[in-house]
Amino acid sequence: MMDLALCVDIGGTKTAAGVVDRHGNLLEFLSVPTPSASAEAVVGEAIALAQGLLSRVERRERVVGLSLGAPGTVDFEHGIVVYTPNLPLRNVPIKTLVESELNLPTFVDNDANLAALGEAVYGAGRAAKFIVMLTLGTGIGGGVIIDRRIYRGSFGGAGELGHMFIHSVGPGQAFDLEALASGTALVKRVQEHISAGKGSLIFELSGGSIESITGEAIAKAARLGDELALSAFKETAYWLGIGFANVANIFNPEIIIVGGGMADSSELFLEEARRVMIESAISPNGEQAKLVLAKLGNRAGVLGGAALTFGCAIPHV
Amino acid sequence: MMDLALCVDIGGTKTAAGVVDRHGNLLEFLSVPTPSASAEAVVGEAIALAQGLLSRVERRERVVGLSLGAPGTVDFEHGIVVYTPNLPLRNVPIKTLVESELNLPTFVDNDANLAALGEAVYGAGRAAKFIVMLTLGTGIGGGVIIDRRIYRGSFGGAGELGHMFIHSVGPGQAFDLEALASGTALVKRVQEHISAGKGSLIFELSGGSIESITGEAIAKAARLGDELALSAFKETAYWLGIGFANVANIFNPEIIIVGGGMADSSELFLEEARRVMIESAISPNGEQAKLVLAKLGNRAGVLGGAALTFGCAIPHV
Repeated sequence: MMDLALCVDIGGTKTAAGVVDRHGNLLEFLSVPTPSASAEAVVGEAIALAQGLLSRVERRERVVGLSLGAPGTVDFEHGIVVYTPNLPLRNVPIKTLVESELNLPTFVDNDANLAALGEAVYGAGRAAKFIVMLTLGTGIGGGVIIDRRIYRGSFGGAGELGHMFIHSVGPGQAFDLEALASGTALVKRVQEHISAGKGSLIFELSGGSIESITGEAIAKAARLGDELALSAFKETAYWLGIGFANVANIFNPEIIIVGGGMADSSELFLEEARRVMIESAISPNGEQAKLVLAKLGNRAGVLGGAALTFGCAIPHV
Repeated sequence: MMDLALCVDIGGTKTAAGVVDRHGNLLEFLSVPTPSASAEAVVGEAIALAQGLLSRVERRERVVGLSLGAPGTVDFEHGIVVYTPNLPLRNVPIKTLVESELNLPTFVDNDANLAALGEAVYGAGRAAKFIVMLTLGTGIGGGVIIDRRIYRGSFGGAGELGHMFIHSVGPGQAFDLEALASGTALVKRVQEHISAGKGSLIFELSGGSIESITGEAIAKAARLGDELALSAFKETAYWLGIGFANVANIFNPEIIIVGGGMADSSELFLEEARRVMIESAISPNGEQAKLVLAKLGNRAGVLGGAALTFGCAIPHV
């Protein structure tokens, strides 16, 4: 019985890997730092992880295939990682490289697409047909799921919702959702205020070093009532709300799943973002889009990879 | 043989109606002013047009059904026009009203969706699988076509691309594509400059009346080299380019079809908008999205209605 999928989810800082059965049970799971020295190192680590998982599967014939997630632009059809902003992968034919080592059908996709599919099939989106997921972290990734399938567009580049422009101060100076509402943007906003002399608990929580400020420290300060931290989250919530309004107007989804590291601080921005979305979107699109938190955490990409593998290798089960 | 569709396309100012055969031939076509006094008047005119067309069909049994387009939010499933910004239709169960008069299966959709489907099936998008259409006129409408089907989202409200926010100067002051790049925005921009004392041919071409300025007059002045007219079109092109970049990043379409009244002046903005799109979208999404002009003009909604009727009434032909 072919009922297992091997899944490797290459992230900008960590690579997760696992073995998943048809019911979405994670039989093995591990997470290691992503090597960043070269494309060879990244691909080598992915192959080593897959081989390690395969060696722990009792009967190899149970394995349907292998999924690979990569944090960037992927040519799904040909299994090529075209470009990754935070890793040295450029036009890497990773499907071919991995298949020649492992002799398993291999499917390669964008990591946010896989996370969205994982949440849609096994997590927060199980009952919904039209789903948009946003992963809020260092960057902002997007995934669009229609009827339990990833919407990829013509050439695999669709769903780049972090790169949706929502503000511009003129030619050449347009800002996308990621530039305004990511964890990186949150930290930068706070750093600017503290550099300009604004007092805040955040500074103490970061050991008196502006460079050491993290999203976690800002969240901690906000929970203690720090004014700068609260206003930085409020601004983040505003831009997220505008982004959600666009998603509601464009896709009219049943649910918008919010995941990524920032989702751990959702109590600091999600209600305000929802208010801005409903106020800004055309009615009733805003009211119809339920904002829900992701359920699968750092396993979403691995589980989505399994859903992709089962769906692609045996599409009509 | 059931091979004809009756189609009524209710617009903000004009209502078009026609009889279309399975090959997309328009056997009858007419366009009349849309009555705006009341919902009853709008619905009554639509029914009268449909009855007129039906009386001219030689064998009634050839008619598969009737389509209705409305310029606003439509509940496709129940055939209800929920809201139209420029007409007095509010929660009008137009499908039921029309079916009780004509005894024909009736399908109701947003007018921009129908125009997009018409272009996809019979016009500029025939060869493409993933299509986004923008109708640029008084407002900006959007339609998303995947595999010759309208993408409606969960409750029929998807594809509202004119309501995608691309600029904000703070809470409560977000501007959407329509507010920045429609014909109305173009006219308003010029009116403001002329009110502020800026000299321009446009003023003379409009009989010395700021209120009389039209998009056509601005286009005429631009073709004669008028500086204000050219700069107003350049600004329109910038915002359109940002909107196109968002469409490319979100949908990765093969083609973006540009229609509506402003498409008649496309030589004044489309190349610049394309340049901004390619410069702003992530690569290669921007390069992959071909900008093409609509081919069907004011017949797109009627032809799209026919495609919808044939597709819904006999889905597997």
